[in-house]
Amino acid sequence: RRPSGKISTQRQEQDEFKILSGVFNGKSTGTPICIVIENNDTNSKDYNKDVIRPSHADYPATVKYGSSFDIRGSGHFSGRLTAPIVFAGSVCRQILARRGVTVGGHIYSVGDVCDTPFDSVNVTGDELNKLNTRSFSVIDSYSEVRMREEIEKARLDNDSIGGVVEIAVTGLPVGVGEPMMHGVESALSAAVFGIPAVKGIEFGAGFGIAKMRGSAANDPYALRDGRVCTVSNNNGGILGGITTSMPVIMRVAIKPTPSIGQPQSTLCTETMQDSVLSIRGRHDPCIVPRALPAVEAAVCIAILDLMKEGGKL
Amino acid sequence: RRPSGKISTQRQEQDEFKILSGVFNGKSTGTPICIVIENNDTNSKDYNKDVIRPSHADYPATVKYGSSFDIRGSGHFSGRLTAPIVFAGSVCRQILARRGVTVGGHIYSVGDVCDTPFDSVNVTGDELNKLNTRSFSVIDSYSEVRMREEIEKARLDNDSIGGVVEIAVTGLPVGVGEPMMHGVESALSAAVFGIPAVKGIEFGAGFGIAKMRGSAANDPYALRDGRVCTVSNNNGGILGGITTSMPVIMRVAIKPTPSIGQPQSTLCTETMQDSVLSIRGRHDPCIVPRALPAVEAAVCIAILDLMKEGGKL
Amino acid sequence: RRPSGKISTQRQEQDEFKILSGVFNGKSTGTPICIVIENNDTNSKDYNKDVIRPSHADYPATVKYGSSFDIRGSGHFSGRLTAPIVFAGSVCRQILARRGVTVGGHIYSVGDVCDTPFDSVNVTGDELNKLNTRSFSVIDSYSEVRMREEIEKARLDNDSIGGVVEIAVTGLPVGVGEPMMHGVESALSAAVFGIPAVKGIEFGAGFGIAKMRGSAANDPYALRDGRVCTVSNNNGGILGGITTSMPVIMRVAIKPTPSIGQPQSTLCTETMQDSVLSIRGRHDPCIVPRALPAVEAAVCIAILDLMKEGGKL
Amino acid sequence: RRPSGKISTQRQEQDEFKILSGVFNGKSTGTPICIVIENNDTNSKDYNKDVIRPSHADYPATVKYGSSFDIRGSGHFSGRLTAPIVFAGSVCRQILARRGVTVGGHIYSVGDVCDTPFDSVNVTGDELNKLNTRSFSVIDSYSEVRMREEIEKARLDNDSIGGVVEIAVTGLPVGVGEPMMHGVESALSAAVFGIPAVKGIEFGAGFGIAKMRGSAANDPYALRDGRVCTVSNNNGGILGGITTSMPVIMRVAIKPTPSIGQPQSTLCTETMQDSVLSIRGRHDPCIVPRALPAVEAAVCIAILDLMKEGGKL
Repeated sequence: RRPSGKISTQRQEQDEFKILSGVFNGKSTGTPICIVIENNDTNSKDYNKDVIRPSHADYPATVKYGSSFDIRGSGHFSGRLTAPIVFAGSVCRQILARRGVTVGGHIYSVGDVCDTPFDSVNVTGDELNKLNTRSFSVIDSYSEVRMREEIEKARLDNDSIGGVVEIAVTGLPVGVGEPMMHGVESALSAAVFGIPAVKGIEFGAGFGIAKMRGSAANDPYALRDGRVCTVSNNNGGILGGITTSMPVIMRVAIKPTPSIGQPQSTLCTETMQDSVLSIRGRHDPCIVPRALPAVEAAVCIAILDLMKEGGKL
Repeated sequence: RRPSGKISTQRQEQDEFKILSGVFNGKSTGTPICIVIENNDTNSKDYNKDVIRPSHADYPATVKYGSSFDIRGSGHFSGRLTAPIVFAGSVCRQILARRGVTVGGHIYSVGDVCDTPFDSVNVTGDELNKLNTRSFSVIDSYSEVRMREEIEKARLDNDSIGGVVEIAVTGLPVGVGEPMMHGVESALSAAVFGIPAVKGIEFGAGFGIAKMRGSAANDPYALRDGRVCTVSNNNGGILGGITTSMPVIMRVAIKPTPSIGQPQSTLCTETMQDSVLSIRGRHDPCIVPRALPAVEAAVCIAILDLMKEGGKL
Repeated sequence: RRPSGKISTQRQEQDEFKILSGVFNGKSTGTPICIVIENNDTNSKDYNKDVIRPSHADYPATVKYGSSFDIRGSGHFSGRLTAPIVFAGSVCRQILARRGVTVGGHIYSVGDVCDTPFDSVNVTGDELNKLNTRSFSVIDSYSEVRMREEIEKARLDNDSIGGVVEIAVTGLPVGVGEPMMHGVESALSAAVFGIPAVKGIEFGAGFGIAKMRGSAANDPYALRDGRVCTVSNNNGGILGGITTSMPVIMRVAIKPTPSIGQPQSTLCTETMQDSVLSIRGRHDPCIVPRALPAVEAAVCIAILDLMKEGGKL
Repeated sequence: RRPSGKISTQRQEQDEFKILSGVFNGKSTGTPICIVIENNDTNSKDYNKDVIRPSHADYPATVKYGSSFDIRGSGHFSGRLTAPIVFAGSVCRQILARRGVTVGGHIYSVGDVCDTPFDSVNVTGDELNKLNTRSFSVIDSYSEVRMREEIEKARLDNDSIGGVVEIAVTGLPVGVGEPMMHGVESALSAAVFGIPAVKGIEFGAGFGIAKMRGSAANDPYALRDGRVCTVSNNNGGILGGITTSMPVIMRVAIKPTPSIGQPQSTLCTETMQDSVLSIRGRHDPCIVPRALPAVEAAVCIAILDLMKEGGKL
């Protein structure tokens, strides 16, 4: 699901991987799976170490790791580091599928353009799996048209644009999640903030619930097909940090690509003088479509860990 | 900083603690500090195990832990479990203070009533310490009046109301935060979601940044008093998961108290029939003022852990 | 199983405990179990902070934790800290018992006096449970007589004596233990070295296997009652760090009590002059009988953790 | 320091490694160092999956990981897995060297042939570094002659022989090691038991201390060149799990190579019948010389971790 077309980066990163260990005759062997993804297209000339790129990790990373830090391609702060996360997530996704658990998502918004949100009570694994086959995942196809326009406008302005992705997890049993600081929201948020450019996460009604009264926010219980469920899902399938068996719903805020062609004020670390930077490299004007599979992968990893920890595998 | 006045719970929880180990002559000894906080005012009669309280952890916790789970007072899902977190946070806060790091916060909103937000570039440790002396922390005193009105209205309706708290951390050096899923946002969010009723967290411009263009969202670098800083702080003092030395800014969404006097639809687990529940107990109509010190404490704990892990203590 | 009689310390440590949380109607509730064991008989006058006690943790602990370190009763380096380990171990032991896993041990040697060793192939859970009812656990009753003589001789000389304990674990399934540095021997040794005075651990034939040839050391496989087993057990039930279903066998070396009445050369930290120390306090001349239940408890904890990690619970 | 000569395996494992990440211009960059060591000489025909090799991990590993477990070359239970540990250890060793900490070892015994032991009080980093340059590390050169004879005798008998390695760590400050189950012995033993074929570990006088009286076992304190030290070192530089600044001394028991040419009784898993196995492959008759650098590497890793955890880096 690498994004394609002109909205995506023109760097030819093939993301071809080679499995070095842990797989035999198409099956995992129980030993660690090691894969190598070669990065064939780094053109180090595109980067000038001395001028700090605003809103990249360059400055804090160089202070933290010192002069030998390899800023070419951002080192381990590069978005390319999501490739191994996506690989690990795809292994976890297969294990979850056997337990009837499905993780899927869509682009909830780009700038001010919004897609239809998930039906937080009725969303099904089949719907999620269908979204997973799309290269630009939206629920309402017309959203894609308008979002691509929004992204193209930013590109023509040598600028970039942010967005939000929405993820759902269906099929979880009741009781996944450990107490205190090891609940589902804790585990998912820790994993998801590992994806570069994520600046916020909310579950269920999220920040919206903060404006609600309890009488509207509380999710009443009812029986459905003999199973205990709730008729609304403002808590996003999680109470007290543990799953209720309702779909887990979260939204994740992605900032605009920090690399833009427009001139930006910054500092030159060599001269310690003000400087102006226009980034000429090849960059996505919107990383949201590219972030979605990475966020989903982080969710798959965290959910599988929680299920293992709680003896639910 | 337990909230007081009629907006707060009338349960007499003294939160008196007894230190059992780890402190000698007023100083920590290097051994684990053990405190006991007795819970003197549980009236188990207030709870009926058989009717599930909506939006509490009752149902998933009982399924997870089985029939011997002690639902009286919600077991370890009770908001009272934040008392030891606040205690641990206060120890961490003292250690952070010696390194020049200050954590403070205010009630950002209650329902639709908003306080003045932090100045994310210029907020100081002194301002934060001043907020920490208030029992109802707001930046603009008039906000308190309007928020108390909003809470009182909810109380008169036998209802409750949610809100948002905003936290700032000043004085952090550049470079706190470990790579990938162990960055500052990952660590802080995992800790903060351990506080009951939290449903969302965002850093810097947060969900707002998702609507911005890169040219507006990026934080330009400049020198100030010879130090590298940024002239805006939409990234909330964190890039690539590590601190930039700008104030760390986050906002945290708190849901309305789930225990309300209004009748709610739910199930009786004994009969597996629909039931109606009106919770008569003594409950805060708004837990936001009570959540604030707990969220701050979780932040203190997580920041100290990160500094220790990164060798910054 | 606190040791009794004149060979044991005359300090009246009742080891009475009070359960503060996690137990309801005699059953665990799923929430953390907190117990408090008051230490009622510390007579701080028995200790002189300024003269370093040889082979105690005083000196490194004071350097590590600084002047506020509470040396009264050795702080968290006291043998009394094994009481909570024994408590935790007894909870784990009950859970293991339900899975058919039994942990038991005996005093293998005191000074040069040796008990009969375990039959490493045929030892049964019943034999282990029988040993667990004894206050001075030996397989051959006459060993107790001779060991008590050996200990009494040391006591009359104002001296102390070391020994070895042997532990067996029966009923483990095949496959407990994780790869690399998380195998059974790694987990058990890490836990057991947490018990004060332990200076060595060996599994199966242990150091003896280092003198053997492969033809004698290898454990041949055979069928017994239709199950795969080995006809010898020089590997102590562990191959490649994981269990084979044969009994896990280990021996643990315990050093002589460091507190002795005989005069010892040491330093006074106040004057930094040579000093002579005769410890007048009440101390066991042999801590081996007291160490045995603590070592068993550490084994119970580590085994349960491994089984949980490996999904064997 | 791969062993050479006829006592070593004739498999041509070059242990050539390729660094994929984390190193730039000969220096580490702060990002994870990834190396790949290709295994060029596995001849899978040498192994017959159906006949269980005694004292190898085959049987428990196959039960644990199932039929897709790749037994060719023992999967991740192969001694070859120590190559990455040795690599990681060599990185840690360089960092330790800058802090004045040296790790070194020698072959203490092969069968009944013993080398001169370390002087546990006076051993120096220079002596250890000198040992590290030898391919067959012994303190007394004549020990090498007799050990090689012992090994050759075993080889001629189509048999193998075990041994013991002794490791010393010099230059450690006072106070390394965390309380309870995270002390120096716990950390070192957990790491060292990760090396295949290790069956025992002891510190200082080890199992010998169990036969001693306290008056002989205790290490008296004295001043030497103005520094606090002990005149004997039966505790191996560790008290209460933390370092005293005396050399840390440990001995590690290594079992005989389980693969031997002599016929062994075992089972065929296909027919579940008794079977006889003679292993024709190319195997070291003694893995002790090969185990030594792996044990040292595990010690380097564990010591560096402890120093980092305790803020001693």
